[in-house]
Amino acid sequence: MTGRMADRMAEISPFYVMTLLQRAKELEKQGRDIIHMEIGEPDFPTPAAIVKAGMDFIQKGDVKYTPASGLPLLREKVAEFYQQQYGVKVAKERIFITPGASGAFLLALGATLNPNEELLMSDPCYPCNSNFVRLFNGKTRFVPVNADNDYQLTAQAIRDSWQSNTKGVICASPSNPTGTIIKAEVLKQSIEAVNELNGCFFSDEIYHGLIYDEKATSALEFSDDVFVINSFSKNFGMTGWRIGWLIVPEEFIEATNKLAQNIFIATSTHSQYAALAAFEAEAQQELENRRQELSKRRDFLYQKLQDLGFEMGCKPQGAFYIYANCAKFSDDSFQFAHDLLEKEGVAITPGKDFGTNDACHHLRFAYTTSINKMAEAMTRLETFLEDYK
Amino acid sequence: MTGRMADRMAEISPFYVMTLLQRAKELEKQGRDIIHMEIGEPDFPTPAAIVKAGMDFIQKGDVKYTPASGLPLLREKVAEFYQQQYGVKVAKERIFITPGASGAFLLALGATLNPNEELLMSDPCYPCNSNFVRLFNGKTRFVPVNADNDYQLTAQAIRDSWQSNTKGVICASPSNPTGTIIKAEVLKQSIEAVNELNGCFFSDEIYHGLIYDEKATSALEFSDDVFVINSFSKNFGMTGWRIGWLIVPEEFIEATNKLAQNIFIATSTHSQYAALAAFEAEAQQELENRRQELSKRRDFLYQKLQDLGFEMGCKPQGAFYIYANCAKFSDDSFQFAHDLLEKEGVAITPGKDFGTNDACHHLRFAYTTSINKMAEAMTRLETFLEDYK
Repeated sequence: MTGRMADRMAEISPFYVMTLLQRAKELEKQGRDIIHMEIGEPDFPTPAAIVKAGMDFIQKGDVKYTPASGLPLLREKVAEFYQQQYGVKVAKERIFITPGASGAFLLALGATLNPNEELLMSDPCYPCNSNFVRLFNGKTRFVPVNADNDYQLTAQAIRDSWQSNTKGVICASPSNPTGTIIKAEVLKQSIEAVNELNGCFFSDEIYHGLIYDEKATSALEFSDDVFVINSFSKNFGMTGWRIGWLIVPEEFIEATNKLAQNIFIATSTHSQYAALAAFEAEAQQELENRRQELSKRRDFLYQKLQDLGFEMGCKPQGAFYIYANCAKFSDDSFQFAHDLLEKEGVAITPGKDFGTNDACHHLRFAYTTSINKMAEAMTRLETFLEDYK
Repeated sequence: MTGRMADRMAEISPFYVMTLLQRAKELEKQGRDIIHMEIGEPDFPTPAAIVKAGMDFIQKGDVKYTPASGLPLLREKVAEFYQQQYGVKVAKERIFITPGASGAFLLALGATLNPNEELLMSDPCYPCNSNFVRLFNGKTRFVPVNADNDYQLTAQAIRDSWQSNTKGVICASPSNPTGTIIKAEVLKQSIEAVNELNGCFFSDEIYHGLIYDEKATSALEFSDDVFVINSFSKNFGMTGWRIGWLIVPEEFIEATNKLAQNIFIATSTHSQYAALAAFEAEAQQELENRRQELSKRRDFLYQKLQDLGFEMGCKPQGAFYIYANCAKFSDDSFQFAHDLLEKEGVAITPGKDFGTNDACHHLRFAYTTSINKMAEAMTRLETFLEDYK
């Protein structure tokens, strides 16, 4: 029975946080009170207007396939959104509705990446992205980043890292795990660099709705020759609906369409009808309320972690993560996370889920729970630190 | 701008039927009455009990991620289904809930297929399957099949076609486009052959709920060492819900789980809750009613096509397709389908969507519309044939 597994499987690692999550659930079954700050999933429900739109559609019972590219009306709404939000005109033919950002990455990388070609990514970054690359037998060149550059790639870093087999760059802003955003000028220069190198620029913008002090800048503001990945999941508490979108350069429209036809036929129809309501006033107001709530949570958690002695190179500007340096307490953040869970029932994610760049000294805290719960978590963390090391 | 497209895209063809479908829609806009017999999507809605289960869940607004492997309760229901339907015991850990059969194929082939490895498939067969293989830079060896073997592969054909780089076999029963099923003994011997050759056996069983005269036989009745792909889409009119499942050999559980975590995180949560109701009495009764209705449609269409002079090597036993030989009327079934659409407003699928094995003489008729409408289509077809050729 050997040799039947695809070679790529040896290189695709599971999320380390999953073993923690499993242990957390065991502890909960034993009656322990666990505070979850490990999960990248907002704690608010889908807005009522979106729920209603989804139910109104399902009620008719006629949940059939949509075109592979998505419901035409939803593609139009996305196009309008780019006009209103960023002042850019995107032809609706370039917009593909996908089963979450995951589906968008599948399409974008499937249409571009040959075996043994490389993509550049920051380290730390979201682990799935490099696993998509492995799925297509490509390779990832991780470029260490740090707080000096907001944990983001720069045009210089891209040029310095570019190899003959480099196909492109994945940039994520706000970043998971750091919550930092790329400066508009750096984004512009990075896109220019990739265009000059005749590569593909993939911009992961799934947390664009959750930026607290500044304004989000889309890669589309600087070039039509980019792939943009976005999603309803994080902004609208719609993780379980599995719906997002991909915008492709014009020359990739036909390829993306036939790939979508083949690899998922279409995105869930009821999710697409529900998502139509996401662009209306009621859901947009809800998003704004949540953004304000998350901004408060960020400020609270950032201050508390600083007070406890964690170091953050720069203040995160978006998403719902703080990437904290725990070198003062431990050289093994994975063990630290395990010990914190066992002793105090607080679940966080170890740095090694996001790369190897000083991962042993980093922890990701997700502020996807209320300030009250986080306050309790910080009290427990303080107790934990008193005895630790 | 050359060289950025992945090489695989040149080998992935769009569905030819899509150009027909597009033309059919244009004609409909012009006011023409089109009868759709090209679409592989049943015309009945999702059963009320399933709709209700989905809505009851969504109403709570808490549509969050499930585990990557699927809702534990749904996996248990699927396991029970195998016990009841086929008398086989399948550990629920081997069952993965997927975004349709498409998601199941993505996982199964992603976990097994290396670049340049081959899979064997019958010609004709469902075109997406070989496109999944191309997605992973594998190759398909098409084995011509005909009515003598129910348009299915045999153990002998598998052994004869096996190469040093052959990884396995995809078998689909009932088959799309032929509607024919594999005999239990042939299935058993084919699995044995693949096991002896240390390959992977993939059994596409998505039409198992729609078999008219015989009893469905699952690959799992003969071996635990098989991949089984199934779906709620066709049986329950749930195409737009995007939900199916994959059963893997025990040694692939861990790999499949980490692949699912990475490539789609999870299947739509509301679709999973809805699908729970598919195994209850009400939806099962509805399935039985539909099976009987489709059986009548098959008999009607089969007789009519025979009367008109089309030849079918054997009577289809399942799914909702008849694969008819039109050699008597044309040597170009693609042109035939176009002409029929233009002149008489009947849409069918040309053989070239399913392979190259005498495809120019074949047409797929889908009986996914009422007998009344099909009767009208047959009248039009008769008129069309009078002047044709």
